[in-house]
Parts: sequence; C-alpha cells; structure tokens
Amino acid sequence: MEPVRRRGRVQFAPENFIGRELANEITANGLNAERRQFLRKSFLAASAGVLAPMAVRADPAAGDPHILNLPEHATTLGKPVLTHPYGQPSKYEAAMQRRESPGLTRVAASSVSFAPLQGLFGIITPSGLHFERHHQGWHDIDPATHRLMINGLLKVPKVYTMDDLMRLPSVSRMHFIECGANTAMEWGNVAVPSVQYTHGMLSCSEFTGVPLSVLLDDCGIDLARAKFVLAEGGDGSGMTRTIPITRALDDVMVAWGMNGEMLRPENGYPLRLVVPGVQGVSWVKWLRRIEVGDQPWGTKDESIHYVDLMPDGLHRQYSSIQECKSVITTPSGGQLLLDTGYYNITGLAWSGRGKVSRVDVSVDGGRNWRAARIEGPVLNKCLTRFNIDWVWDGKPALLQSRAIDQTGYVQPRLNELRAVRGTRSIYHNNAIQSWLVAESGEVSNVQLD
Amino acid sequence: MEPVRRRGRVQFAPENFIGRELANEITANGLNAERRQFLRKSFLAASAGVLAPMAVRADPAAGDPHILNLPEHATTLGKPVLTHPYGQPSKYEAAMQRRESPGLTRVAASSVSFAPLQGLFGIITPSGLHFERHHQGWHDIDPATHRLMINGLLKVPKVYTMDDLMRLPSVSRMHFIECGANTAMEWGNVAVPSVQYTHGMLSCSEFTGVPLSVLLDDCGIDLARAKFVLAEGGDGSGMTRTIPITRALDDVMVAWGMNGEMLRPENGYPLRLVVPGVQGVSWVKWLRRIEVGDQPWGTKDESIHYVDLMPDGLHRQYSSIQECKSVITTPSGGQLLLDTGYYNITGLAWSGRGKVSRVDVSVDGGRNWRAARIEGPVLNKCLTRFNIDWVWDGKPALLQSRAIDQTGYVQPRLNELRAVRGTRSIYHNNAIQSWLVAESGEVSNVQLD
Repeated sequence: MEPVRRRGRVQFAPENFIGRELANEITANGLNAERRQFLRKSFLAASAGVLAPMAVRADPAAGDPHILNLPEHATTLGKPVLTHPYGQPSKYEAAMQRRESPGLTRVAASSVSFAPLQGLFGIITPSGLHFERHHQGWHDIDPATHRLMINGLLKVPKVYTMDDLMRLPSVSRMHFIECGANTAMEWGNVAVPSVQYTHGMLSCSEFTGVPLSVLLDDCGIDLARAKFVLAEGGDGSGMTRTIPITRALDDVMVAWGMNGEMLRPENGYPLRLVVPGVQGVSWVKWLRRIEVGDQPWGTKDESIHYVDLMPDGLHRQYSSIQECKSVITTPSGGQLLLDTGYYNITGLAWSGRGKVSRVDVSVDGGRNWRAARIEGPVLNKCLTRFNIDWVWDGKPALLQSRAIDQTGYVQPRLNELRAVRGTRSIYHNNAIQSWLVAESGEVSNVQLD
Repeated sequence: MEPVRRRGRVQFAPENFIGRELANEITANGLNAERRQFLRKSFLAASAGVLAPMAVRADPAAGDPHILNLPEHATTLGKPVLTHPYGQPSKYEAAMQRRESPGLTRVAASSVSFAPLQGLFGIITPSGLHFERHHQGWHDIDPATHRLMINGLLKVPKVYTMDDLMRLPSVSRMHFIECGANTAMEWGNVAVPSVQYTHGMLSCSEFTGVPLSVLLDDCGIDLARAKFVLAEGGDGSGMTRTIPITRALDDVMVAWGMNGEMLRPENGYPLRLVVPGVQGVSWVKWLRRIEVGDQPWGTKDESIHYVDLMPDGLHRQYSSIQECKSVITTPSGGQLLLDTGYYNITGLAWSGRGKVSRVDVSVDGGRNWRAARIEGPVLNKCLTRFNIDWVWDGKPALLQSRAIDQTGYVQPRLNELRAVRGTRSIYHNNAIQSWLVAESGEVSNVQLD
C-alpha cells in the first residue's frame, strides 16, 4: 500500500503567515474585530521586517502567466448543464477513493473498503466514499419488491412495502457509523500506514427514515413482554442482531435516505436500520425483518463475532456502544510535510454516548495538551470536526488527539485500554492514535503506550 | 416536461394507521412515553373495530412469496467491496436527476439544471444533484495550476496556490445556496409543473474553506479605505460581483470543500466563494481574483442582470439577500395521491437573514394554519426540513407553507409581494407556493393571491 499523499503540501515559511493562533480566534462569523486589529498590526510589523512574500507566486504587475495570460478556460465556452444529469467528481480527484486492505479477509465479498479520511473535510462523508463492510457481498435490490416484516410479541404482525414506509412520519438526523472492528490492527501492534486504514471504517451521513418506535406502535407492540428486537438483513449472510427494546424505542430509525437521496446499494438500499451510537454491524442493511422477543438471540454475529476476548479468557458480549474516540486526519500517516511552518491540524471526534464536549491536541506525545477549536454544529452521536494551529519547527513531533464526551468520559491511552481489555481483542479499540512527524517531514503511524 | 412522480404512493386507508398527529409528537429521541401509551390504546381500540390490516400485504403464516420464499439475493453471494471505488446510486434511482427547463436560455452552456427537490430528504443536497447555473459553461480546472489573486486596497497583493489556501485555518459550515432567479416563472403567472422547476435552483451543502477575512488580513487589508470587494470567476463569462466589506469580513468563505469532498466541477472546482444568505450569483465559481475597493463596481451582472424591475420602472439593485421562503416538496406538483388517508407533508424552509423559527402549513389555501414539526439541527442560513401530518379525505385541497425567520419576517403571499414589487421582476420571488390536490389525487401548481 503506497502512502496516500494529500493536497495541501505547502511551500511558504512560518513568518509569512501570521496565523499562529488564528484558527482558535475564528468565531461563528469570521474573525472578531479586536483579533483582526491585532493580526493586522502583527502583519504590518512582520512585513516591515523579515517578511519575504513567499506566498506571492508572482508580482501581478510583472506578468505572471497565470494572471495576465488568461488560462484557456477563461476565454472559451465551457461544457453545458446536464453534461452529467447526475454529477461526478473532477477527473483530478481520481485518487480519492475507497480502498481495500489486501488480505484482511479471504474473499472480497466479505471484506472491507475504507473511507479516505485523510482527504475529507467537515463531518459529512460523501456517499460515494462511505466505507463498505459486507458479510456476503452487496445487492442492488428492487425497492418495488422489497418488504419489511415485523413479527413477534405484538398485536398485528405486518409486512410493509417501501411505499407504505415512505408515507409515514419521517425524521432526518446526522449520525456517525463506525464498524466495531475499526482500528482493529492496533490491538496487535500492527501499525497500518495511513488513517484510511487505521480509522477508515467510519462515516457520517444525514439519515432519513421512520422511527422504529412508530412501526412497533403501528403493530401494537406488547410492551409488558417485549425486551429485545432482532433485526435481520436481506443478504445471504444471515446477518441478525439483537437490540434491547429500550434502545429500539429510543432513537433507532428504519432508514431509506442517506445524505438527501436514497441509500446506496452498498449501504443497504433500499432499507437499513440506523442505530445511533452503536457499532455498524447492528445497522442491518437490506433490512427485511424485525422480530420482537423477550430475550437476546445470541446469533453467530453476537457470539462468535463482535465479542471482545478479555485477559481472563472470557468474552465480553453485546458491547455495542462505540465509546468516545478521535483521530487527527491531517497531518496523518503517509502524508509528507514539505516545509516547516504553519499547519492547520484537523481531525474528527465522536462518541456513541452523545455529544463531544472537548478535543485536546498534543504535538509532543501527550506531555502538553491544547484545546482544539470545535466546528459546529456539535450533534448527538455524530462526527465532530476539530481544528488547531501548529507551527512546525522541523524537529520530530508526536501528534495526538484526545476527545472527551458529554458524560465526562476521556478517550484512553493505549496502555490504559490494554490494562483493562488485554491485547487479544479485535473490536472496540478507541485508544488515542499517535502520528510521528519525522525531521524529513514524513508522517507515520507509531504505537505509544 | 412530464410530471415527476415520486415513490411513496400508498394504498392503505387512514384508519389503518393511527398517525394523525404523530409527526408532531416525535421528540429528538422517538416518541415520548405518554404519547406511545396513547397511540397504543388508540391502536388497540381501532383494531377491535374497523381496522382492516390493509398495510399487511400478506399473512406471514400463509406463505407470502416475499417472506417465506427467500428472494434470490438472500441466498446468493453478492458483489464484492470496491465494485465501485467511488460509489454510485442504485440503478433503480435513475429517474432522480437534474433536469433542464427547455427554452429557458438560448444555449445550454448558459442554462440551468434544477435539483429534484420532490425526491430529496433532509437538508443535505447530494452533490450529484446540486443545481447548475452557468453563464458560459463549466470547466474542470486543474487545481495544480489554479491561482487566486488578491489585490486592491491592501498592503501586499498576493497570489495563492490551492496548496497555500488548503494549509490555512479552515471552517466547515452548512448553508443553502439559491439562485436569485429561483421561482422566477411565477412572477409572470406561468405555473411550471413541478417543484423541481419552481424551486429547484436551491441546494444545501456543508462547505469547507478559509474565511475570506483570514485572507484579507493576510494581505494587510486597508480597513480605513476598504468598502467593497469584487469577486471574479475563472470562466469565460466575465462573472464579477460586488460584496460590501462588512459582509466580506463576516461569514464569507473561500471554499474548496462541499459535502466532505472537493467541490464538483459544475459547482466551481477547485475554488468558489461562499456568501451565506446571498443569491447564488455572488458565490463566484472557479474563483480567481478578489479585489478590494472603495465603491461598488456596477458590473454587467449587477446592473443589467440580477436587478428587480419595480412598478415605477426603476431597478432595485444590489438586493442580494434571499429573504425567508419555504416550499412543500411532497405532495407537490406532478405527484399523484393514489388513495385517501394519512400523508406526511414535508418541505424545506430557509432565510438569508439567519435561522428559520417556525413553519406553518395550511391544507385549505391559507384559511387555517398549523405549526409544522421542525427537524433539527436548525442552522444559520441553511435549509430547514419540516414535516406535518395530514389525513386526506379525498376532497380538493390547497397545500401551502409559510416560513417565519428569527427576525420575525413572515414569508409573504403572492399578492402581498406584487403589491410592493409589481409583476415585471425576474428575481427574488419568495412568495408562498400553492399546490392543488384534485379529487383525482393529481397535484398541480396553482397561483393564488
């Protein structure tokens, strides 16, 4: 796997941009007036002294070909509307794609493709780059023939068409989805090279659907006996997951929409369960059945798989909540800093228990921490983007982020996690990630205690 | 133009679903307990009486082929991950596309394609369905050669590469963009058939970029003299727009990101201006230059075009804010209600002056109004999704929505707007939209005073 380099390699020197603490001064509506005054003074002072205008690629008056000689596209007729009735990315963005980790599974139909977090912005994952995790491959199911059955401990078992479902009261909410096995390699001291492979089983979308509680009410759920529901997928993998009734009646959705349009086939089209805060395997794709029962089912995917092997040899089961976690996405493994100077460190934080309340960033391996600027809106069980300034002096640096959620839970260091959970787990690794910036500017994945 | 029918045509009768006021009872986390109890009782009462289980397509025990005879995809191996390294919509969604209004402009390179609002969910517009409006066609510009020049009343004019810009402190915010000419046909009593053509020059995305204030500070803007900036696009149309300096230093962004990835070429790749709350023409695409000056430029696109011809024959100029507006997207023109009964009326509201504070919905042409349920998060200068229950009794109905923003401004009726602005405008029509539901179930665009 070759390292994925990201646009944003920069030539200019630190003194050229007076941005040391700038990112933290940006308010909801730009810079505040005092700060602007300060920046301007700083800038003028700098200009009078050492400031070499290295960001200025050319003197506009001196005939830079990019400015005075207009590029062809500025003097010609471009392409018409509807060249693409459904638009596509630029041809220059072809490197931005999902990638598979070869050898991770035996066949590609039960494999993973990772989202390129190192090149994404904000909190919305473009649907074309949403990570994939299939157990027996994906299908493009005709919504006209798809059915959802609800049966078990309720008054009237029902079978819904897509038309039935889409007529019901719907909600739209932004939530992250993370595979329980995200960052799995790190348990075994395998430092995969880039954030795409360490954390790329993570995506975030605006989902639209009907609350499961509405459907269960419609079927007359027997609340006195109902303790769990089982969700069953329509693919051939026999994917079934138990969900406690309290959660099922809380914020779980039966969703058809993702980022404004219908789900993509790889993500469960035409219907998937959305179980906010819970590992991705429970967000059952191609959803075909919900059964209401009075005890957990203990299916293969919750007894053989998606359990955590603890130091005492026992399995931790039904540990479905994705605990608070964060990762720096730029600079990150495989990227290259071409020069010293100002960088905007950016990353993502999330918690299956609610909102992210703070993200701290260290550039010295955890000895000193600074609070990052949190991008709004900060939403429940949703990715949160953070940014913080950094001026790289050319010496080795160790970049880390540490998220804290609304419950006060603090993202653990790897040794703290291992002290409790051992080293034989696959799932539910939410430890702090470390990126080493070498003197050469190369960024790599390192494991620190 | 054939009417675009939307999935969601439903067969079941009103008494079959106890959802009359349900949408308004959904809290942030599903139904509240009291409401659930009420619904369950209502449901049981109804079940004991008239309730024919019409939503039940089959008795699960009686051998519905969709349930007991597993579909092929439930017993076979599906497609592998990375079938599409960059994912695409389902083949069954091919009808969901941008559409041109034939004859609206003389050539397709200076035309419009409209977003299919009737089939979209939530507030995020999928980037592939973002509306297009070009003045001389679009280009796919190589970001490695693209430059942004900033000149005029500042200390150091500069030329930035994309690498320079993307290294700076960035922000990500969700905002709507609406063409000033959206809903233009309605001024002239032309009732175009569907919401795609009435309101489809409207989209909403998460944008990522550097605040323009940061760049102007970096160049040492002369705040004592600077009163306006001019933004210039890189296409051949000579697109230039004046923006007051107070706005330029407020929430304007120089953006490269849209919905998590780089801008699409049709939307300005690799760089566009984001001017929240302001008509789309000022969101200059393929942005190549910002000039700081002390007076408005009065360019062709702000003197001949994008001005409002008032009743007294004078032009209203620089009226760039998109005032508070809303529209019901389902049911809407060209759709067909196949039966009476429960429907979830849904739509979008927005205001260029801030947040939407309330949306009222009428089903009788404005005689009676009910407050709709507002979907969160409600964001500044961003689309806001609303939902409200409706049980259609089969008689003609007139559906309208009326938005109110945080300033207290109330979306006007068409005659209120015309009383002030006359009938000869093209731009800035934010009047209440009316959809007529006929006894046949056909929904059409009608103009009411």
